[in-house]
Amino acid sequence: MKDVSEPILLVEYSRVRANTQAMVERLDCEDMVIQTMPDVSPTKWHLAHTSWFWETFLLLEELEGYREYSCEYNYLFNSYYDAIGERHPRNQRGFLSRPGLADVLGYRRHVDEAMTRLLSSLEGEPLERLEPLLRLGLAHEEQHQELILTDIKHVLSHNPFAPQAFPETGRGAASDEAGASWIGFDGGLFAFGVEGLPFQFDNEGPRHEALLTPFALADRPVTNGEYAAFINDGGYRTPSLWLSDGWARVNAEGWQAPLYWHERDGAWRQFTLHGEAAPQPDAPVAHLSFYEAAAYAEWAGARLPSEREWELAAQRGAGPDGRFAMPGWSAHPDVCEPGSGLRQMFGGVWEWTRSDYAPYPRYRPAAGAVGEYNGKFMSGQYVLRGGSCATSQGHIRPTYRNFFPPQARWQFSGLRLAKDI
Amino acid sequence: MKDVSEPILLVEYSRVRANTQAMVERLDCEDMVIQTMPDVSPTKWHLAHTSWFWETFLLLEELEGYREYSCEYNYLFNSYYDAIGERHPRNQRGFLSRPGLADVLGYRRHVDEAMTRLLSSLEGEPLERLEPLLRLGLAHEEQHQELILTDIKHVLSHNPFAPQAFPETGRGAASDEAGASWIGFDGGLFAFGVEGLPFQFDNEGPRHEALLTPFALADRPVTNGEYAAFINDGGYRTPSLWLSDGWARVNAEGWQAPLYWHERDGAWRQFTLHGEAAPQPDAPVAHLSFYEAAAYAEWAGARLPSEREWELAAQRGAGPDGRFAMPGWSAHPDVCEPGSGLRQMFGGVWEWTRSDYAPYPRYRPAAGAVGEYNGKFMSGQYVLRGGSCATSQGHIRPTYRNFFPPQARWQFSGLRLAKDI
Amino acid sequence: MKDVSEPILLVEYSRVRANTQAMVERLDCEDMVIQTMPDVSPTKWHLAHTSWFWETFLLLEELEGYREYSCEYNYLFNSYYDAIGERHPRNQRGFLSRPGLADVLGYRRHVDEAMTRLLSSLEGEPLERLEPLLRLGLAHEEQHQELILTDIKHVLSHNPFAPQAFPETGRGAASDEAGASWIGFDGGLFAFGVEGLPFQFDNEGPRHEALLTPFALADRPVTNGEYAAFINDGGYRTPSLWLSDGWARVNAEGWQAPLYWHERDGAWRQFTLHGEAAPQPDAPVAHLSFYEAAAYAEWAGARLPSEREWELAAQRGAGPDGRFAMPGWSAHPDVCEPGSGLRQMFGGVWEWTRSDYAPYPRYRPAAGAVGEYNGKFMSGQYVLRGGSCATSQGHIRPTYRNFFPPQARWQFSGLRLAKDI
Amino acid sequence: MKDVSEPILLVEYSRVRANTQAMVERLDCEDMVIQTMPDVSPTKWHLAHTSWFWETFLLLEELEGYREYSCEYNYLFNSYYDAIGERHPRNQRGFLSRPGLADVLGYRRHVDEAMTRLLSSLEGEPLERLEPLLRLGLAHEEQHQELILTDIKHVLSHNPFAPQAFPETGRGAASDEAGASWIGFDGGLFAFGVEGLPFQFDNEGPRHEALLTPFALADRPVTNGEYAAFINDGGYRTPSLWLSDGWARVNAEGWQAPLYWHERDGAWRQFTLHGEAAPQPDAPVAHLSFYEAAAYAEWAGARLPSEREWELAAQRGAGPDGRFAMPGWSAHPDVCEPGSGLRQMFGGVWEWTRSDYAPYPRYRPAAGAVGEYNGKFMSGQYVLRGGSCATSQGHIRPTYRNFFPPQARWQFSGLRLAKDI
Repeated sequence: MKDVSEPILLVEYSRVRANTQAMVERLDCEDMVIQTMPDVSPTKWHLAHTSWFWETFLLLEELEGYREYSCEYNYLFNSYYDAIGERHPRNQRGFLSRPGLADVLGYRRHVDEAMTRLLSSLEGEPLERLEPLLRLGLAHEEQHQELILTDIKHVLSHNPFAPQAFPETGRGAASDEAGASWIGFDGGLFAFGVEGLPFQFDNEGPRHEALLTPFALADRPVTNGEYAAFINDGGYRTPSLWLSDGWARVNAEGWQAPLYWHERDGAWRQFTLHGEAAPQPDAPVAHLSFYEAAAYAEWAGARLPSEREWELAAQRGAGPDGRFAMPGWSAHPDVCEPGSGLRQMFGGVWEWTRSDYAPYPRYRPAAGAVGEYNGKFMSGQYVLRGGSCATSQGHIRPTYRNFFPPQARWQFSGLRLAKDI
Repeated sequence: MKDVSEPILLVEYSRVRANTQAMVERLDCEDMVIQTMPDVSPTKWHLAHTSWFWETFLLLEELEGYREYSCEYNYLFNSYYDAIGERHPRNQRGFLSRPGLADVLGYRRHVDEAMTRLLSSLEGEPLERLEPLLRLGLAHEEQHQELILTDIKHVLSHNPFAPQAFPETGRGAASDEAGASWIGFDGGLFAFGVEGLPFQFDNEGPRHEALLTPFALADRPVTNGEYAAFINDGGYRTPSLWLSDGWARVNAEGWQAPLYWHERDGAWRQFTLHGEAAPQPDAPVAHLSFYEAAAYAEWAGARLPSEREWELAAQRGAGPDGRFAMPGWSAHPDVCEPGSGLRQMFGGVWEWTRSDYAPYPRYRPAAGAVGEYNGKFMSGQYVLRGGSCATSQGHIRPTYRNFFPPQARWQFSGLRLAKDI
Repeated sequence: MKDVSEPILLVEYSRVRANTQAMVERLDCEDMVIQTMPDVSPTKWHLAHTSWFWETFLLLEELEGYREYSCEYNYLFNSYYDAIGERHPRNQRGFLSRPGLADVLGYRRHVDEAMTRLLSSLEGEPLERLEPLLRLGLAHEEQHQELILTDIKHVLSHNPFAPQAFPETGRGAASDEAGASWIGFDGGLFAFGVEGLPFQFDNEGPRHEALLTPFALADRPVTNGEYAAFINDGGYRTPSLWLSDGWARVNAEGWQAPLYWHERDGAWRQFTLHGEAAPQPDAPVAHLSFYEAAAYAEWAGARLPSEREWELAAQRGAGPDGRFAMPGWSAHPDVCEPGSGLRQMFGGVWEWTRSDYAPYPRYRPAAGAVGEYNGKFMSGQYVLRGGSCATSQGHIRPTYRNFFPPQARWQFSGLRLAKDI
Repeated sequence: MKDVSEPILLVEYSRVRANTQAMVERLDCEDMVIQTMPDVSPTKWHLAHTSWFWETFLLLEELEGYREYSCEYNYLFNSYYDAIGERHPRNQRGFLSRPGLADVLGYRRHVDEAMTRLLSSLEGEPLERLEPLLRLGLAHEEQHQELILTDIKHVLSHNPFAPQAFPETGRGAASDEAGASWIGFDGGLFAFGVEGLPFQFDNEGPRHEALLTPFALADRPVTNGEYAAFINDGGYRTPSLWLSDGWARVNAEGWQAPLYWHERDGAWRQFTLHGEAAPQPDAPVAHLSFYEAAAYAEWAGARLPSEREWELAAQRGAGPDGRFAMPGWSAHPDVCEPGSGLRQMFGGVWEWTRSDYAPYPRYRPAAGAVGEYNGKFMSGQYVLRGGSCATSQGHIRPTYRNFFPPQARWQFSGLRLAKDI
């Protein structure tokens, strides 16, 4: 097995790293400096931070003779690992013109060369020992690929003239269906979570049983057209539809539509990475907060699914039929292909669940600094399942647990309805 | 039955209303005006709001010829019922010198007379129809009794000279035990929640099954002495013990100890409603946020219980052995009586669980304005179980779900450790 | 002289202290607790602080055997004297229910008895030495009388039902004049400021010369009717009329009219201490910021006077023809009596000048803690001249320099136009 | 005259524009995007805004057939001219990656070509009419040259590793003098301000008389060494030295030294555009707020000069002996050359005066949009006189009135002592 797995990890590494770089090719270096809110990081920071991750957790520990690229980078590009030392304040990442893009790309090359050396020589016990960390690094970089897209979208949307980052794309043909269908599931004791994959995040396990009562899921996500009906029906002005915290947020921030929608001459327009356009009625609605997703579900006489309902359904046969982040793709959710069964469980929008982000029974974080990856975020956030048009295809699976605070809207986040039966 | 139940409700009503009034007897009218943070309401506001509840949901609807006390009070004393109309901003309740205390007490008498008339005449179908609402009103007023205590404690604590609201009380004898004991519970499918009680909140149902894995609970809450050891061990300076949001809060607000603790001449002092004193080492620690409770549990190598673990244990035999809010009592948690089995599950401190406040399976809020009582708060909060020294004894039971945001510290909130076995 | 001046100071003291008390007679003790913004102090705080001033600067220093009323009061009721030690934060004065009103009135009596003792026995050198400080204390208490009125007005205005603090008063007959007249003054070198009065503030001197160019002043303040014309002409929507900081304030705070004006059914209503009413067209407009006064003047093709222009005019013959704060008066500016010459230079509204609050040439603050009375506030404020309906009559004179930040609106502040000729 | 003055204006224009560009030559395009506080604008914004000024006020009005470079630029690069229409919010200038630097430089070339055409053809009446506006444009661009330097200094200082923008420079030899000397001036009536210069700002006139009393000025600005003595003497911890607003600022922002000073290993270090270094004891102290300047003067037993005292002294013989912004210069104040008489009145640091920024007698702003240049800022600011090492030499003169809010510290602002005699 060994002689096969070694090249595979190097191939994987090279592919993922190249994808990151491909993603930013059309951006100007000035685009990559800007931070429009504390949640958003500049593109350049993502490019450096993903390299810092390899350097800190792999190269400095494991590659004999590795020379640190710059002694300042650990301070600048540590994201949140308290165990690794002091770090630059998150909300000041947009103040860093230096190191410039050229230096950051030099950092990437330096790390790539060293990683190539490390991965070429790795075998036997060290390989086995390091493989989980290497796969974590790949997953980590793929996560940041998605953040590069969602963050630069936020940045460019703050330009009053809404520049187009990527070329316009053809749109899927409009479907002509009348509405979503319900797909029913029996209740019972089922197993959830996963253990023993070549790679998984610690938060996806331990595998455990839980009891579900019968429920139904919509066969596809809620669309822009359906969501516009909610708006037109006064959804944003009806407190009884909203969670109390959501209603406070609607009023404090003046929400009247999803993020990136604005009205012009009486019609909705939507900022996308491919230019501004009317929201396509049959495409999934995106850039909703948890509160908006829950209010919509209430208005529709339904509810959000729990994360275990979603996982059970996904395990029962959903395929990744969506569009993922890859060369030549479009960074905007496409219309759902017609068909029967669950559609677009992956590759359209992340789907808010009603489940708070909490540890599975008997969960313990990994030891050491990488143990800060997931566990410490388990409060105040909700789980999203699936994967969006901005997610790397290889990165997602039925047990993947994404999570964001309930007010977050800058991700490609939408919803799929559920109900009790 | 009917001829019996009628007087009972009136007796109940009179008892609860009298308890509210007894609680504020020692306060000056000036104490009752002040609001020290948006979460805190002035005592006078609680006195009026609890009367508004009876007037709005019972008297105006059900008592023929009832004359509203003042047409301005609906605006002033509605807490959060959007369906009932516009209301005075919560964070400006401390700006209301008028109506004065005398008017508010007049309002209470006016409502009491009318309620007496209503309850004296109620029988048959109307009684059956209204009984749930009446019992909700009683529970509502008992909830506000607790808030009156926790809010006035916050108010008086902001006086630099820490005035004593209530007389000093004798203290329980210190126990001499070595530490808490673990009590184990088997896993399995168990039923949770309750339906069909003479009164329950809607959030306590529907009754449903869920799967637990084996666990153990500490026989008593964590004490001041144990918590002081956590502080001395650098608990507030060790990020790895904390949830990420909790660590941010520690730093933003400079937390170094529970609310109401401060250091003087190298020793801890604690503000209580009965004066300032050293925290009693064997009494339960109170005024912790969820974040502090979780960090303490992490430090202790344990975890917080889930709300269902707590409920299962409580159903298996815990009695209300604590001290509750009643005439002549002390509004401060007392030391735990020695004994075997679970101790002080009720009547000491509210115990944080790791469970977010979410609807039970198939939960639907009640119809109408009272449907706003619970459901709309089901995001961003954590469940506490038990009942504190400031809770009315008749008000609590094993299925009762209290809930607060994770940063809240002004309630009598502590913790009991749990672990997997 | 000595045997005469002693009683006079005691008579003065007693009169001023009694006036303070008369002013609050109609307020409830609950009114006196509330602080609606950091600039506003609770009535009770004013009652205590004015007593603290006598206790701190006179009694503790000069009265043998004086017993401090409470050792806590120096911390609570010091306003801003850094030299006197630590003090309670200004923005938390509304958190003090204790000491209660009864205690504060006891404090006043305690101080009054001691002051009576001190003033009865004072003669010779000590009297001469202390007289300036005694007169400063009287002026200080009269200043706080005005603040009691303007602060309680702000407090009561925050009650959504605008309670009436004082009885309604008859209104002056409407005048029928066509408009204000200009009164011209020659330029030249003139003397300003004053020295050697029985009492004056240090900021009123030294007396000094300055050069004025010819100017004219309006014979009366701008009226509500004139100001309403400015509003109707879009004054609050025309940036070219405003100072840059003023325009920012208009937008940030949504100003559309003077403080305490609001629109109802298409007409202006005004909150006053005597109830709500339509603004009287011929009465002076009050509760303007410096920015609004300057914008109005720009709109009217005029400007604000400098403080020396105002003082020169006042020295040339204006009499205090207005209405001042005294028993039985109305705490609202009255219409201007018809007549020739400068009218209502005093006793209507404080009049904003274009002069920043700066030291006169060769000014030095007094030594010791009372040196903090004026000098340290000489930045970021503008001078107002005259005196309002809420000012004590004996307290004002042509050289008196009142001062507030340009955004302040809760004083009875208006304007009188000036122009170059 | 005409055939001479035409080329001169074109030569002037070309020189000033080239200086702007020379100033940014060593910056990376990423440096030019960042905004670290609302007062700071990105370099790129300055480059565009100065071009917008020429385009808006000259080219669009006066050059037949001029084609606007981009219809979006008026919205983006208008600074504060309300009369010119809506504009991009000031505090979001750092969100503009597009237009990129290349576009902005294209804008500059486009404007330069058109201005060259306009200036080459201008003669007779049009030239006379436009000359004031042309000279205003030159002065405007020179003002922004200084802001480019002070703003990029602020930006780079926010990088935790303090990058060096410009090469290190030799330092002036340390002087060995014992201290500053006083130079006395008689009082009397003097004329101030200026009228009829080839160019002047409207705020420098009208010329007018005012009365001064005898005073003395220090012969040179306060130095780093003197200011360090103030710090060591507890200057930042002594409230009696400070204006009340200044003391509040010291505490709110934790000031302990001038901006850009920080302590390392017990010694002061200073961030400069030429790298980090110990503050040179004999060089003028820079980056003080008005409050710090006033507190220092109080500590030194002196005071700040009024702007008229400064102007009188400057008229009496001070020469521009300092170092100004020009090719090859150092953007940091140099030590004062030894000598007699007033030294370094220009070219070291801007010197705070005690004079608020107010209109001279009979001042009226210019008509039209350029009338917004000065007058609307005449509140809440203090006048600084002189000119700093970052000022263009041709731009300053004895009557020039610079102005900033009292808390501003990012300019090269220091002080010179004055006293009454």
